[in-house]
Amino acid sequence: MIAIGIDIGGTSIKGAAVDSNGRVYEKFSLPFIKGEPGEITIRKLAETVKEYIGAQKLDNKIVGIGIGCPGTLDVEKGIVNYSNNLCWNELHVADIFKEILPYPVRLTNDANAASLGEAKFGAGKSYETIIMLTLGTGVGGGIIINGKLFEGNQGKGGELGHTVLVVDGEPCTCGRKGCFEAYSSATALIRETKKAMLANKRSLMWKVSPEIELVGGRVVFEAAAQGDKSAQKVLDTYIKYLGEGILNYCNIFRPNVIVLSGGIANAGDALFDPLNQYIKERNYGYQSTPEVKVVPAELGYDSGKIGAAALFFE
Amino acid sequence: MIAIGIDIGGTSIKGAAVDSNGRVYEKFSLPFIKGEPGEITIRKLAETVKEYIGAQKLDNKIVGIGIGCPGTLDVEKGIVNYSNNLCWNELHVADIFKEILPYPVRLTNDANAASLGEAKFGAGKSYETIIMLTLGTGVGGGIIINGKLFEGNQGKGGELGHTVLVVDGEPCTCGRKGCFEAYSSATALIRETKKAMLANKRSLMWKVSPEIELVGGRVVFEAAAQGDKSAQKVLDTYIKYLGEGILNYCNIFRPNVIVLSGGIANAGDALFDPLNQYIKERNYGYQSTPEVKVVPAELGYDSGKIGAAALFFE
Repeated sequence: MIAIGIDIGGTSIKGAAVDSNGRVYEKFSLPFIKGEPGEITIRKLAETVKEYIGAQKLDNKIVGIGIGCPGTLDVEKGIVNYSNNLCWNELHVADIFKEILPYPVRLTNDANAASLGEAKFGAGKSYETIIMLTLGTGVGGGIIINGKLFEGNQGKGGELGHTVLVVDGEPCTCGRKGCFEAYSSATALIRETKKAMLANKRSLMWKVSPEIELVGGRVVFEAAAQGDKSAQKVLDTYIKYLGEGILNYCNIFRPNVIVLSGGIANAGDALFDPLNQYIKERNYGYQSTPEVKVVPAELGYDSGKIGAAALFFE
Repeated sequence: MIAIGIDIGGTSIKGAAVDSNGRVYEKFSLPFIKGEPGEITIRKLAETVKEYIGAQKLDNKIVGIGIGCPGTLDVEKGIVNYSNNLCWNELHVADIFKEILPYPVRLTNDANAASLGEAKFGAGKSYETIIMLTLGTGVGGGIIINGKLFEGNQGKGGELGHTVLVVDGEPCTCGRKGCFEAYSSATALIRETKKAMLANKRSLMWKVSPEIELVGGRVVFEAAAQGDKSAQKVLDTYIKYLGEGILNYCNIFRPNVIVLSGGIANAGDALFDPLNQYIKERNYGYQSTPEVKVVPAELGYDSGKIGAAALFFE
């Protein structure tokens, strides 16, 4: 079985044919042109897919087209209701595709697509119940139950970054205060790094990143590794809040595994060792509750494409 | 189809035959004798069920025996790993039953059983995805996805009361700090009521309950209805934290409905009106995200029995 998997992002749109073993065929991409009307972008995309399918000689083999897209979607109707990143509003993606191509089209949130990819063919492939968290500008999430993506009513569940961890805490982009995202995103880590730098001008963090505007998620990891106490404190606090949020998802879902992706998840053992220790020490319900391992994602940038295609392999 | 549904509690064990339309037959019960070895209690229970099935002439109609039980269970093996309320430890409930009766036995957490009952035949019966929260001594939870109970690895998920809402907040019975349960249980409401009474000796709460040791969950509702400002403040805060926890479950699951049970849920409009208003005002994701209605449970004390039996009707 072969499906087309497409990953729509704010700078480019990427896609490929993917088979039901997770093998990725030759890839295609087109730039995302800011300001272009969404309907035109989708028409161009559908034409690109049509040409690709022809060039790859896959006309009779494609079972469907899966699309991962940021924003609030109506997955049942194939509509992007609203995407802040893409500046799309009530865009009927599936309908436009169907004018150009004869295959069924399924839409899902980009974080869901990446989660399904990891669940089927990446870090979660041996397991039934998987929670994935993407620690990027925000915190995206995906819920896989018995190997299937769970999306909630109209596909609008799975907003795992938008659960309050501190009532009346840090403001969140969603309008509430104290969301998991406001403590565990790369944005939150960078915010706290900058605060700690301004509070301690002698911190090694200034050596790692002399320009405070250019501070990224790695600064605390590098400075802490060199023994900087201010950096270590930022890191400990980050791991504490990330750990508390993850423990919440352990208690709600008791999944087989929790997969972390996004830039921060590339930090390796410096992140995963203390994080797993934090979670192990606070495991729920005496000895009889199975521990949940937190592991890094494995598919990198392909997870979205693979997962979007995998909407047809469930 | 008919199954036996059993609800094990710390003072009595109740059961009945239930058919696949949710109709409850004649009920039976036996006292829960504190200090009696669990194996003896379960043998007596199984003998009671055997007699009941004979007396009701249901021998050839029973498809299984469902049991709801508090504590940490291994639902796959039919074992109660640990129950603080019942003082049971590694009790092989299903195995004991099978020595006495020829029917399949399924165990689930008591909160899960009640949730499945409400989902199939009560407040959730028209819906696919239902979250139930039981606001009692603690906060129990149940997750129903596409009409089926979701329990997590070994049946140890669904601990919806044990998700941190305030990092480093009020201590919780589970060992963590700031859990939803520590703000939204009847115990939490009573704790805050007592605090407010001690801080204001002229509050009407003292009229409603002159003996502070006897304060129950209704005191703030009664005093607030009479215009007492201290009581209103306790109630507003309670609704805020309960609302924040419920909003979290809306964003995670985007269920069709959230059902509340337990003593506090009997407070009627004085609870549900401001709670639904709080949630409506903070609904996620602009206009396009469906609102989630919070409603009271409908089956009362029968929900556990009905839901335990319904483990065989999924």
